Amino acid sequence: MTPAAISFRNDYSEGAHPAILEALSRDNTRQEPGYGDDGPSQRAAELIRLSCQTPHAEVHLVSGGTQANLVVCAALLKPFESIIAAETGHICVHETGAIEATGHKIHQLPHHNGKISSDQIRELVQKHVDEHMVRPRLVYLSQSTELGTIYSREELTSISQACRELQLYLFMDGARIGSALTSEASDLSLADIAQLVDALYIGGTKNGALFGEAIVLCSPHAFPLFRHHLKQRGALLAKSRTLGAQFEALFTDGLFMTLARHANRMAMSLAAGIQELGFQFAYEPLTNQIFPIFPKHVITELSKSFSFYVWSPHDSDSDVVRLVTSWATIEPSAEAFVTRLRSLVGARS
Amino acid sequence: MTPAAISFRNDYSEGAHPAILEALSRDNTRQEPGYGDDGPSQRAAELIRLSCQTPHAEVHLVSGGTQANLVVCAALLKPFESIIAAETGHICVHETGAIEATGHKIHQLPHHNGKISSDQIRELVQKHVDEHMVRPRLVYLSQSTELGTIYSREELTSISQACRELQLYLFMDGARIGSALTSEASDLSLADIAQLVDALYIGGTKNGALFGEAIVLCSPHAFPLFRHHLKQRGALLAKSRTLGAQFEALFTDGLFMTLARHANRMAMSLAAGIQELGFQFAYEPLTNQIFPIFPKHVITELSKSFSFYVWSPHDSDSDVVRLVTSWATIEPSAEAFVTRLRSLVGARS
Amino acid sequence: MTPAAISFRNDYSEGAHPAILEALSRDNTRQEPGYGDDGPSQRAAELIRLSCQTPHAEVHLVSGGTQANLVVCAALLKPFESIIAAETGHICVHETGAIEATGHKIHQLPHHNGKISSDQIRELVQKHVDEHMVRPRLVYLSQSTELGTIYSREELTSISQACRELQLYLFMDGARIGSALTSEASDLSLADIAQLVDALYIGGTKNGALFGEAIVLCSPHAFPLFRHHLKQRGALLAKSRTLGAQFEALFTDGLFMTLARHANRMAMSLAAGIQELGFQFAYEPLTNQIFPIFPKHVITELSKSFSFYVWSPHDSDSDVVRLVTSWATIEPSAEAFVTRLRSLVGARS
Amino acid sequence: MTPAAISFRNDYSEGAHPAILEALSRDNTRQEPGYGDDGPSQRAAELIRLSCQTPHAEVHLVSGGTQANLVVCAALLKPFESIIAAETGHICVHETGAIEATGHKIHQLPHHNGKISSDQIRELVQKHVDEHMVRPRLVYLSQSTELGTIYSREELTSISQACRELQLYLFMDGARIGSALTSEASDLSLADIAQLVDALYIGGTKNGALFGEAIVLCSPHAFPLFRHHLKQRGALLAKSRTLGAQFEALFTDGLFMTLARHANRMAMSLAAGIQELGFQFAYEPLTNQIFPIFPKHVITELSKSFSFYVWSPHDSDSDVVRLVTSWATIEPSAEAFVTRLRSLVGARS
Repeated sequence: MTPAAISFRNDYSEGAHPAILEALSRDNTRQEPGYGDDGPSQRAAELIRLSCQTPHAEVHLVSGGTQANLVVCAALLKPFESIIAAETGHICVHETGAIEATGHKIHQLPHHNGKISSDQIRELVQKHVDEHMVRPRLVYLSQSTELGTIYSREELTSISQACRELQLYLFMDGARIGSALTSEASDLSLADIAQLVDALYIGGTKNGALFGEAIVLCSPHAFPLFRHHLKQRGALLAKSRTLGAQFEALFTDGLFMTLARHANRMAMSLAAGIQELGFQFAYEPLTNQIFPIFPKHVITELSKSFSFYVWSPHDSDSDVVRLVTSWATIEPSAEAFVTRLRSLVGARS
Repeated sequence: MTPAAISFRNDYSEGAHPAILEALSRDNTRQEPGYGDDGPSQRAAELIRLSCQTPHAEVHLVSGGTQANLVVCAALLKPFESIIAAETGHICVHETGAIEATGHKIHQLPHHNGKISSDQIRELVQKHVDEHMVRPRLVYLSQSTELGTIYSREELTSISQACRELQLYLFMDGARIGSALTSEASDLSLADIAQLVDALYIGGTKNGALFGEAIVLCSPHAFPLFRHHLKQRGALLAKSRTLGAQFEALFTDGLFMTLARHANRMAMSLAAGIQELGFQFAYEPLTNQIFPIFPKHVITELSKSFSFYVWSPHDSDSDVVRLVTSWATIEPSAEAFVTRLRSLVGARS
Repeated sequence: MTPAAISFRNDYSEGAHPAILEALSRDNTRQEPGYGDDGPSQRAAELIRLSCQTPHAEVHLVSGGTQANLVVCAALLKPFESIIAAETGHICVHETGAIEATGHKIHQLPHHNGKISSDQIRELVQKHVDEHMVRPRLVYLSQSTELGTIYSREELTSISQACRELQLYLFMDGARIGSALTSEASDLSLADIAQLVDALYIGGTKNGALFGEAIVLCSPHAFPLFRHHLKQRGALLAKSRTLGAQFEALFTDGLFMTLARHANRMAMSLAAGIQELGFQFAYEPLTNQIFPIFPKHVITELSKSFSFYVWSPHDSDSDVVRLVTSWATIEPSAEAFVTRLRSLVGARS
Repeated sequence: MTPAAISFRNDYSEGAHPAILEALSRDNTRQEPGYGDDGPSQRAAELIRLSCQTPHAEVHLVSGGTQANLVVCAALLKPFESIIAAETGHICVHETGAIEATGHKIHQLPHHNGKISSDQIRELVQKHVDEHMVRPRLVYLSQSTELGTIYSREELTSISQACRELQLYLFMDGARIGSALTSEASDLSLADIAQLVDALYIGGTKNGALFGEAIVLCSPHAFPLFRHHLKQRGALLAKSRTLGAQFEALFTDGLFMTLARHANRMAMSLAAGIQELGFQFAYEPLTNQIFPIFPKHVITELSKSFSFYVWSPHDSDSDVVRLVTSWATIEPSAEAFVTRLRSLVGARS
């Protein structure tokens, strides 16, 4: 009998961390108000404000990332205003036109390792001069990016300054912000980021929750009546305690960071093993998504025991592969992967 | 010390039924695909198809009711097509214009006990004759209605026939379909309904789940590429097992019906006690939402121990009140309400 | 051979007043900038500002009324904001959901002779209290109304005050504002109206132009970057001199008022003749649309020589008919109608 | 006194060809139905069907190009479907996000002389595989392009075949289709094009009309109830005879082609003079828009007597300039430009 393949396809393959499930059970029959007015949501919001060091921020919990992205963007923009993003940005490719469905254009800028620069932003804004063109008004960044890389303090500060000069809002998609913050290469804290952006969302789904993302409005004055937007887009959960309890647990005793750090550690363990065997990476391995380059026949063999995405072609003989780890990845899985890879390399040479 | 008020405000004040929490914990670390391709979602879909006796229906699990409503409506309609609904319909009043935000007009028809009739539908369609007017194309019904009433087999059959003659789609908002199906006045099964509509959604949030609604596309050919719509509106959950496990539990061993029947029984217990004390109802009490009429001073007193909505004015001295029970309401709470009411009546006379 | 029927169907059956055609020919080959920056458009704007006594207003010329309505409404509202209108309002019925297609709900209030009152507005706003409901933000009025009636100074002032108290914008659809201003019953000037509303449009199409409506933004600060909105909705004409020349002509030497007054006079002539023969009107005849009630057999006979709309049923024997006159209606046509009607009445008695 | 500069800024600087003005005056007071049911519009439609050799096509006349583009695109697409266009396409840059405002994403492909190829289209479609991505469904081409170039029969046939294989609609923006059809380099007739696309629009504004574009639905079955779309977007003109009379004139006695041919001849005359003086072009001069490259100091001098756009930088010393001719450009204007240029070159050498 063949054992089930170990999956490195993504960071939402497992359920929730036990502390999250425990939080959902606790006080289960206690009556609570709905739509975010419940105790757990209120306490989670306060804990997140503390972590962000933003006492005046608004925190809203929603069920998914596409929802968070589309509500924030639609709330900030007038009909003729547009969004600037890296062409690799999640909103450009993998959200089925969710942003455009709210009526707004996205300018897709060429990326460098999944990132854009303040210079690119300035140049684009300068080209949009009159009423025959949309008006760029919002910059969207992912942290960590879709390619596993992260914006440094210098890069993010430079973008933030450009945004303020150019009267652009800055929004960070933090579906994987945990992995970014706990990367060994990171020089940014959550509080640093909260200072530099107008809004961000903190991803729960990909960091141990059953589901849920926490939208943090660092510049709440830019988002009048935000709950109206949430409700209109179907993003206000009736039994909101379900979200509140999870984020309360994640932001108690540092659980959020602990889980993200574990995921990164598993990725670094994989990366070290892969590198040692002489393979290159398409992008520097920094967080819980890594992108090694493997010969096609190696990929074919690996696929028999492990599940992962073949990301893009590299050259005629080899492809880039994406491996993702999570809070639930265990050391033996990473070891099994490297062991199998080693055996394939040995077989090859 | 004042004890906390018992809440009859709604049916989403508590967490989830223990069997649901149990289901979420089971196989928690088993790796599953996401976005609806997971085992639990697939099994839940199959159980729901069985309950509906619709082997060819598509089942999609989403996180909330507004989301279900807006995705189904937007998927069915061309830009110039419109929706017919009772003016009391949830989409008309309490969803912050979510349907209009997808570009479609709703014709709000006068209601009779929260319901509309096939005659009203025919009359409206006949008035829309050319390209200067929208084209009515979809009828939206709530079952049970926002006033706790239910459509009978005769009423729903008549509407369904009108829809087929007039080339209208028929969609049922079943946020409280459990309470409708298990009402003592009901003469419709889930399978009956599935035969008469093109789509419905089965409400989990208000019947014991942590959250979640199951969209059933009974006429799937009318919804090509429905998952594209779901994704675009932010309604496709990454860790979809979270929804799947809950609906698998709800549709195992009749739990869904058991929970709804309990909620109804609690409401009928309240209604009987209230009626016995000589009070009238604005709408006949049939499901888990009841609408007694109380003198204002009685409402003031009741509010000190119980939480509920004052629904609408009745006359200069009295108001209509809404009391909602749920799977989690316990007999002693209902008794406490009636007892308190009795003491107030005694005090009054 | 049967001569063609004389049409009282609407006020856009003929081409343009000769002075308009003349204006289009004048300086035809002179090179002008486009998109509203041309000399004629600039001069027309200045003439309109003078007529409105609003030196700071912005004036924008567009090709049609639906376009004017949808651009103004979409420019003023956030996604969750809504519009209040009479159920007979043009945007409610005869624009194929153009407003909803921009994402906004319209509250359709019961009308009294085609009009709504400040009390109705206040009551509606008071019902919309939280984020589960849209936020009413704009009142839409037609002047003259779709039923040929007009708002008096007292009525409009009362609505304007209510709007300012309730933080609502006030927008007047003036597709037939010429007929309203020149009605003998009118106690409002264009300058009066411009003081009381935030925006209006002055209808050219129905008052002697080939086409064109002049949007007047009386509160321009409420419409930042309005030209971006115009362009996005396809409402910015490249060869804008075509619109400019027409409105320059209309607002020179009082042509706009002269044409409207003529249309009204023709309608009053018809109305007097009809009344003299003992017929009633569904709505008081005040402007260039009148609504007499005729027996069905009379309508059948009249239809052989005249073209008009049968507006609505009156009772089992008679219907309400709409007769519309224009700048181009000639006295003999009105006389022919009354003469024919008289012969039918004679034949009847 | 300085004489006014001669403008080569665009092809909508003058009014209308005298035959068009004449057509608008003819039968001016004859009563006609509105909204496209008038005689002139019906006759224009028939003449256009004859020119296109498409007896079953629907023809709809609208007031502007952005309007034509947004209505056609919105009519063809489901919410999650997208459009493929050259990055230089008018809808990508110069329509203020009009397409996105209807909810649809545009894929902006790199251009080659303003054009895209069937290979680019195939490659893009192949990348869009599942419900996490939009579904490409419509290809948008401009003919002539925004850079004055034209698609050849071979290129257009290849794209058309790709579209049919890939189930994509093909739509041609013909704002300047007259200049394309009458280019000396053209090997495509209007009838050829009508065979290869699902819809096109024939530009009147830029070819001698006061305003107006004729949408031709070559595959009318793909556009059910198209007039509903037109009305909803504000694109149905009440006094439609205004559009009908113009297109009737344009398609009588070959006027449309005559005007376009004249514009091209003026452009070729300019181009020949410029080339003779030793200047290069950024794109081959084929139609009524030409793009010579001039030293910056030459541009400065030319700007004193002529009006035109500086299109883009070429190198540190020179820029690309756009010169546009029209039906109204006269030979002496072209000669004056070349003469002035010659004098500047002389001064330089």
